[in-house]
Amino acid sequence: MSLSVNFNYCGGFADDNKLASIQSEITAADSALRNGTGAGSDYLGWIDLPVNYDKEEFARIKKCAEKIRSDSQVLIVLGIGGSYLGARAAVEFIRSSNYNLTCKDTPQIYFGGNTLSSTAVAELISLVEGKDFSINVISKSGTTTETAVAFRIFKKLAEDKYGKEEAAKRIYVTTDKQKGALKALADAEGYEEFVVPDDVGGRYSVLTAVGLLPIAAAGIDIDALMQGAASAREKYTNTDISANDCYKYAAMRNLLYRAGKKIEIMVSYEPYMLMWNEWLKQLFGESEGKDGKGIYPSSVIFSTDLHSMGQYIQQGERDLFETVLWVKNPIADIDIPFDEANGDGLNFLYGKTMHEINGNAHDGTVLAHTDGNVPNILLTIDKQDEFNLGELIYFFELACGISGYVLGVNPFDQPGVESYKKNMFALLGKPGYEELAKELKERL
Amino acid sequence: MSLSVNFNYCGGFADDNKLASIQSEITAADSALRNGTGAGSDYLGWIDLPVNYDKEEFARIKKCAEKIRSDSQVLIVLGIGGSYLGARAAVEFIRSSNYNLTCKDTPQIYFGGNTLSSTAVAELISLVEGKDFSINVISKSGTTTETAVAFRIFKKLAEDKYGKEEAAKRIYVTTDKQKGALKALADAEGYEEFVVPDDVGGRYSVLTAVGLLPIAAAGIDIDALMQGAASAREKYTNTDISANDCYKYAAMRNLLYRAGKKIEIMVSYEPYMLMWNEWLKQLFGESEGKDGKGIYPSSVIFSTDLHSMGQYIQQGERDLFETVLWVKNPIADIDIPFDEANGDGLNFLYGKTMHEINGNAHDGTVLAHTDGNVPNILLTIDKQDEFNLGELIYFFELACGISGYVLGVNPFDQPGVESYKKNMFALLGKPGYEELAKELKERL
Repeated sequence: MSLSVNFNYCGGFADDNKLASIQSEITAADSALRNGTGAGSDYLGWIDLPVNYDKEEFARIKKCAEKIRSDSQVLIVLGIGGSYLGARAAVEFIRSSNYNLTCKDTPQIYFGGNTLSSTAVAELISLVEGKDFSINVISKSGTTTETAVAFRIFKKLAEDKYGKEEAAKRIYVTTDKQKGALKALADAEGYEEFVVPDDVGGRYSVLTAVGLLPIAAAGIDIDALMQGAASAREKYTNTDISANDCYKYAAMRNLLYRAGKKIEIMVSYEPYMLMWNEWLKQLFGESEGKDGKGIYPSSVIFSTDLHSMGQYIQQGERDLFETVLWVKNPIADIDIPFDEANGDGLNFLYGKTMHEINGNAHDGTVLAHTDGNVPNILLTIDKQDEFNLGELIYFFELACGISGYVLGVNPFDQPGVESYKKNMFALLGKPGYEELAKELKERL
Repeated sequence: MSLSVNFNYCGGFADDNKLASIQSEITAADSALRNGTGAGSDYLGWIDLPVNYDKEEFARIKKCAEKIRSDSQVLIVLGIGGSYLGARAAVEFIRSSNYNLTCKDTPQIYFGGNTLSSTAVAELISLVEGKDFSINVISKSGTTTETAVAFRIFKKLAEDKYGKEEAAKRIYVTTDKQKGALKALADAEGYEEFVVPDDVGGRYSVLTAVGLLPIAAAGIDIDALMQGAASAREKYTNTDISANDCYKYAAMRNLLYRAGKKIEIMVSYEPYMLMWNEWLKQLFGESEGKDGKGIYPSSVIFSTDLHSMGQYIQQGERDLFETVLWVKNPIADIDIPFDEANGDGLNFLYGKTMHEINGNAHDGTVLAHTDGNVPNILLTIDKQDEFNLGELIYFFELACGISGYVLGVNPFDQPGVESYKKNMFALLGKPGYEELAKELKERL
């Protein structure tokens, strides 16, 4: 077992009485989740996904990833929200946040279709210029504006470069099984197709084809990823908080929230985890931020951000807690060089590795922040590898589902995301939105 | 005048009575700041910096940037906090968040010395391998652990590659004018030296050599940058809130905070501004987050993050407000292609440019979020260029100083940053910390 959780730095919140007080709510949340009797129960496919997935499709993902690696210098992944963050988080977590800058035998992976910035899209076009590329477009409906606009542009680019027939062999579509604009197009054009399952919401979809194809294209072992998730699925089934760290984490979040801790800061000491933190922010923010409730998700990379956000965390408003992820064995380590002159006074570090110093920064910060009344929940993984990532993904998905039910919200919908879209369509003059358009324009 | 601010979407908070109620506090803050009678008045050098800077050094910065561009494929910038964020924010704001991936006639710029992650440092070493490089190390004291450790490593790398003498010509030091470990080393080795002024704190230092050398090396026009800042310095002097948008912003932040809006989300619609938002987070978080007070700074890039944080912002806890930056004329624009089949139903967008759509996303989101009771402060700049960036930098620095005084804190210190450092030193066995080490180890 690789992932471990330490609740010893949560101040008074981890005491047995407090945890006992919320056990019945956790038990009820577990029952709602496992029996499908809670809100949003159409979207529980992620629970058994690590063992109950389409094996034929999984094999096809690996085959297509292999083809992409063999014939493409660049893979353009078009998707937004859950069709973007999981794959990017995994590629950076395992390979590097500078993945596209590093020497490697796998293609560049550029994530597009997630912005309306013309500057950013124009740049992406120029980054692809002169390169052999493939496209993976990911959209359940095929009509999400950001992704569909980008797909129009890059499909045309591919067809202009390769001709329609060859381009069709370089376009991989991840979409609805049966219906929708993108499904129809893929059928008509003969694109390779993968499925966004009906019972898995966007932010829970990283272990479906949505995440797996780009992840596999980056040379990441998706078997090990699924095994890690499957291991977590086995591990966190006990309803007893004291025997289930995942449920204990869900319980702790709610106890902290009720005590006025309204902001959860996701902390890592590895820059590769910047996008992992972004994935967590979507998972929790979109699942819990509704009905006027929810912990506000935020993130930092230490020790970098101890020199920017550290001051606030140490001494600002006391409505924060931190969830800290530590990697025991780093991907690479470095010895501190000896310097005869010792002008910087750092020779006392000689003989240590940089990761040891990072570990002392971690420990010192946990103590400093808890002294500052910021509860710390500490997660440790053995290694920054596929198995551990799979375990983490499942741990947080499950914790989020349970935590959302305890909070009393539907953790599987996102009604608020429609508001800006509706307004945007109206202002853009989309047919059918004329009344709203009139109303909005008067307010601008 | 390029920067404009719109307070019409602040709900009831922008009404004349509310603003009048805080005018006297703004006037007092202005007086404290301008007359140097407030807390932290040793650190007010940034106020006149845009006109009152060392012209000889400024010319030398441009000359050295030219040399670096001519003899280096890579510039390694070593610094943390304010010795890192300003330069990186500016390079990405003007050139690109993918600067190092783009084709260009300026060197790669890698920011290091800002982490203790051995994995990240090892990667940086490999990114530099086989490349001609220079180093700009930035540290007032020369003993900041992250930066000093990295400098040991990269100095050795340079000396091994070029020999001591040639390496010395490739090392640029930005440090204290007179004292400290790095100053002594630079004198002894004959490195080119630049000054971290005594009266400008780290987070206000982007327009000193701290920021300017790397910014200039990236091919950015630092004259125009200073001119933009100088223009803002002239523009925002009136103490009357109704005639000074900068002071009005400072006033609004405090009014919102007092009304329970505890989180400020810095919003941009341009991915190039991700690190700009990080610079803002340091500026405000470190200036105001103390004495148990302060608005928590957070950031998003829309429309990307409307599909992750959008749900929370629309419907979560109502303790948020947004400060939104909009660019009128994008660096590049793109026409939406026509698609005969129109399977995605987007032909109604044909004839528009992508930036127009982005503009409608902006307007639609402002209305959606204000409907959701999230006040929006709207900033607009003409262009994403040096002049506008300079203006923005000064606008926010001044607003932060004023806002901090109204909040009743010293906006120019950061006592809380020492806590983790002290603990880390103790745990690392630094001489002189033996007592603390013993105490801390018992708590781990």
